[in-house]
Amino acid sequence: MSRVKTRSGRAARMQRQTAAQPRLAPVQRKLQPLDVLDQDAIDRIHAASMAILEDVGIEFRDPVALAHWQQAGADVTDSRVRIDRGLLMELVAKAPSEFQVQGRGATTGFTMGGTTSVFCPMKGAPFTRDLDGKRRSTTEADVINFARLTQACPSFHMAGGFTCEPMDLPVAHRHLAMMRHHMVETELPLFGIGTSRERAQDCIDMARIVAGDVMDHATTIFMHASGNSPLVWDEAMLDGARVFADAGQAVLCSPFVLAAANTPADVAATIAQVNAEALAAIAYLQLYRPGTPVIYGQYTVSISMQTGAPMAGTPEVALITTAIGQLARRYGVPWRTSANHASSKSFDAQSGYEGATTLMTALNAGANLMLHSAGWDEGGLAICYGKFIADDEQNQMMARYAGGISLDRFEDALQAVRRIGPAGHYLGDSFTLQHFRSAFAMPERMDFSSFEQWSSNGSHDMAARCRAKARLLLEEFQPPPMDSATREELDAFVARRKSEIDPTFS
Amino acid sequence: MSRVKTRSGRAARMQRQTAAQPRLAPVQRKLQPLDVLDQDAIDRIHAASMAILEDVGIEFRDPVALAHWQQAGADVTDSRVRIDRGLLMELVAKAPSEFQVQGRGATTGFTMGGTTSVFCPMKGAPFTRDLDGKRRSTTEADVINFARLTQACPSFHMAGGFTCEPMDLPVAHRHLAMMRHHMVETELPLFGIGTSRERAQDCIDMARIVAGDVMDHATTIFMHASGNSPLVWDEAMLDGARVFADAGQAVLCSPFVLAAANTPADVAATIAQVNAEALAAIAYLQLYRPGTPVIYGQYTVSISMQTGAPMAGTPEVALITTAIGQLARRYGVPWRTSANHASSKSFDAQSGYEGATTLMTALNAGANLMLHSAGWDEGGLAICYGKFIADDEQNQMMARYAGGISLDRFEDALQAVRRIGPAGHYLGDSFTLQHFRSAFAMPERMDFSSFEQWSSNGSHDMAARCRAKARLLLEEFQPPPMDSATREELDAFVARRKSEIDPTFS
Repeated sequence: MSRVKTRSGRAARMQRQTAAQPRLAPVQRKLQPLDVLDQDAIDRIHAASMAILEDVGIEFRDPVALAHWQQAGADVTDSRVRIDRGLLMELVAKAPSEFQVQGRGATTGFTMGGTTSVFCPMKGAPFTRDLDGKRRSTTEADVINFARLTQACPSFHMAGGFTCEPMDLPVAHRHLAMMRHHMVETELPLFGIGTSRERAQDCIDMARIVAGDVMDHATTIFMHASGNSPLVWDEAMLDGARVFADAGQAVLCSPFVLAAANTPADVAATIAQVNAEALAAIAYLQLYRPGTPVIYGQYTVSISMQTGAPMAGTPEVALITTAIGQLARRYGVPWRTSANHASSKSFDAQSGYEGATTLMTALNAGANLMLHSAGWDEGGLAICYGKFIADDEQNQMMARYAGGISLDRFEDALQAVRRIGPAGHYLGDSFTLQHFRSAFAMPERMDFSSFEQWSSNGSHDMAARCRAKARLLLEEFQPPPMDSATREELDAFVARRKSEIDPTFS
Repeated sequence: MSRVKTRSGRAARMQRQTAAQPRLAPVQRKLQPLDVLDQDAIDRIHAASMAILEDVGIEFRDPVALAHWQQAGADVTDSRVRIDRGLLMELVAKAPSEFQVQGRGATTGFTMGGTTSVFCPMKGAPFTRDLDGKRRSTTEADVINFARLTQACPSFHMAGGFTCEPMDLPVAHRHLAMMRHHMVETELPLFGIGTSRERAQDCIDMARIVAGDVMDHATTIFMHASGNSPLVWDEAMLDGARVFADAGQAVLCSPFVLAAANTPADVAATIAQVNAEALAAIAYLQLYRPGTPVIYGQYTVSISMQTGAPMAGTPEVALITTAIGQLARRYGVPWRTSANHASSKSFDAQSGYEGATTLMTALNAGANLMLHSAGWDEGGLAICYGKFIADDEQNQMMARYAGGISLDRFEDALQAVRRIGPAGHYLGDSFTLQHFRSAFAMPERMDFSSFEQWSSNGSHDMAARCRAKARLLLEEFQPPPMDSATREELDAFVARRKSEIDPTFS
């Protein structure tokens, strides 16, 4: 791993004071989720999704799943499955509305679903905008660094697992290193890699070494199953999903949608199609193993009609996201969306606009799992150290927002108005002194100093400040304790599987 | 005015194609406003505001207003006015729930209030981050430039009037130039300057030259009356407000609040105090001239307890804003908040995060007047050309968001799902070809190209791209037509008043 440097002077000392912050509790949302569809609109979209699955059908390109569907009484023709709405909804009803999640750390458990929201960093970046702000291929050192930052940053309740892709490792056994580093450097529940049966089994086996019996009653490792829109679920994903379901671990069923390319050029019809795709996978997993914990997913971006590129932070994505939340609540399943998404090629103002728009949308929509909520840039092609750190603070602030307005101290606070009266100030008042630390968020990665102070501190923009913070967190990093026997068993597993996969490995 | 340069090549051509966009219609919000307070909380906050005005009272540092209050039966002791809730609410009820606004352009009229939202740029910046990204004192040339950009950018329904402060002009007659340039370079309704009776009268007289009889049945020029929190209204503002009320023009009653410095360190109590301050001014204007069009205002930021600096984009500001919207709707008066606020010292990611958080909050809260919604940086000390242009596009996108999800084309779009089915793509489908231009926002100031395309175009970040767009808009600017007699009368008025104010002026 490359050496990290630290800034000297006042700025670094200020950051050091707050480097070790306690982990944010899973967010208990007090705000009512925003509704963008009225009941009639929800009913029409639901009915359209049902009609799509009954009349058009959906492809399961996987002989095992096709056999299961046929057995269940669905209409199976070649790889096309047409599912009656009665059967579909009967299966969806078997999905738990909430389920338990537990990482290896004692305080890393939470309930997925209901009014709880949790944050997880981005996943899958082949490129990295590094600690100097330069873009390059992702390396194994970055995997380690981002696992450490995930552990060190307060806002994350889950680890990405495949946060970024180490391009310096062979694809065949890359997953072993990614899992190993996340399991050692973090104590959080995490995403595994389920792109084949073998990889999925490796992830489950490694999780079992670390988490043991916990997996019998909670999810410690998740599978991210991406749907192939329009209306296709592929064998690789389904194969992996069955491995996770067999181990009682949760599966995120997430159609991957470029709206207007993979769906009609219409917001409501896009929602209807995405809904059909997600429900079909959720239903299949309940058919395969009733009660399998699942998350209703969707990754929807709109595309630029000039370049075909995905666009985050657009109004239609915000509307689709919020509507999907309404549907997921109708079906009673936990759901995910994406937060802090950006398409920018530098960590600039565009990145901030896009990130905040998607983050606030996700919280207002009441998403349970805020995926990709740190580091995501270039539509997911790149992970950015600076953005990762900035996003972590944005997550913390939006968690406060979702907590709503408390009236617990209201009467006491009003006494201060009677004490101070007109034309005074509250800075020295006893209520202020007692409560100012907790009453208002005090972000430290945003800069609120005057232009003169900011200039005399070196005129660092947010990207530079957050890269410095990343260096500091990495320098001070203390890995969460893991007993040596577990660690040796994990490393031995990785060594054995590497040599099995690539016999030239020694 | 400094010469503006244009970028050559493909990027400039792309921008030129869309340089002249039609003005955005006033936003008709379809989304229900977000609620962050339940009925009990609203009732408690309302009752607390009433108790503050009854028991603590509020200062009107203005003998004319004190006489009016005494006459109306309020308890007046020195400059302290204690207002019974019966009297207060009786007066507030006289404020119109909606009123007509009309600029000098034929299509610049709208209703202020209800489900309509309009955008207005920032106001009052003594510093400018210029077309080269350098920060310097604001000049008269900037006033002209920003008036032109206000006219040229599609999202603005109002002009700031005192968008930025020309530090190269004497304070004594600066207001004349600011008004003149906004009245000539834009055709929009605008904010006047009411910081003294004389300035207010100049603004009204100039507006009368331009708008004539329109002012008898609509507001064409607004007064922005800032309250002096905690619980003070000053003579200068009240004097100006009476001039505007006499002319039948609308007054924005807007407490200026640094939460925890001017209010208790408590979100709910801050709301109760702000509410008392705004209602007292609204009530006074209804006492002075019943039916005066007013806007319920508030400018609330939290402050850094390290530096005392104002902080935008924080969770508490979002909650306060949203709660104020609920209260304004309870009282049946149009209300404002701030959008695209930022504290950053460069147009960087922080600026984007803060801007988007405040913009989305304002739309979700259902604000009627989205003030300061372009250019605002450094907590209002600086106006930024690049941010002004970026914010304009963000406003356009959020207007689409506020329009909600239409089901008008839903059935037609679902036919496309039946045509394409699984595994196809929609790019060549007839529905896509017919509707892709309108179905999804296609922003041009955000960059969605690949890293390679972006690099080969010069690796311009959003700040650079938006500065280039500003140059182009200024180069191509065509002032809205104004008949020569009106313009001559306006210029003669300015010349006469300048020489009266400063006899050394020739």
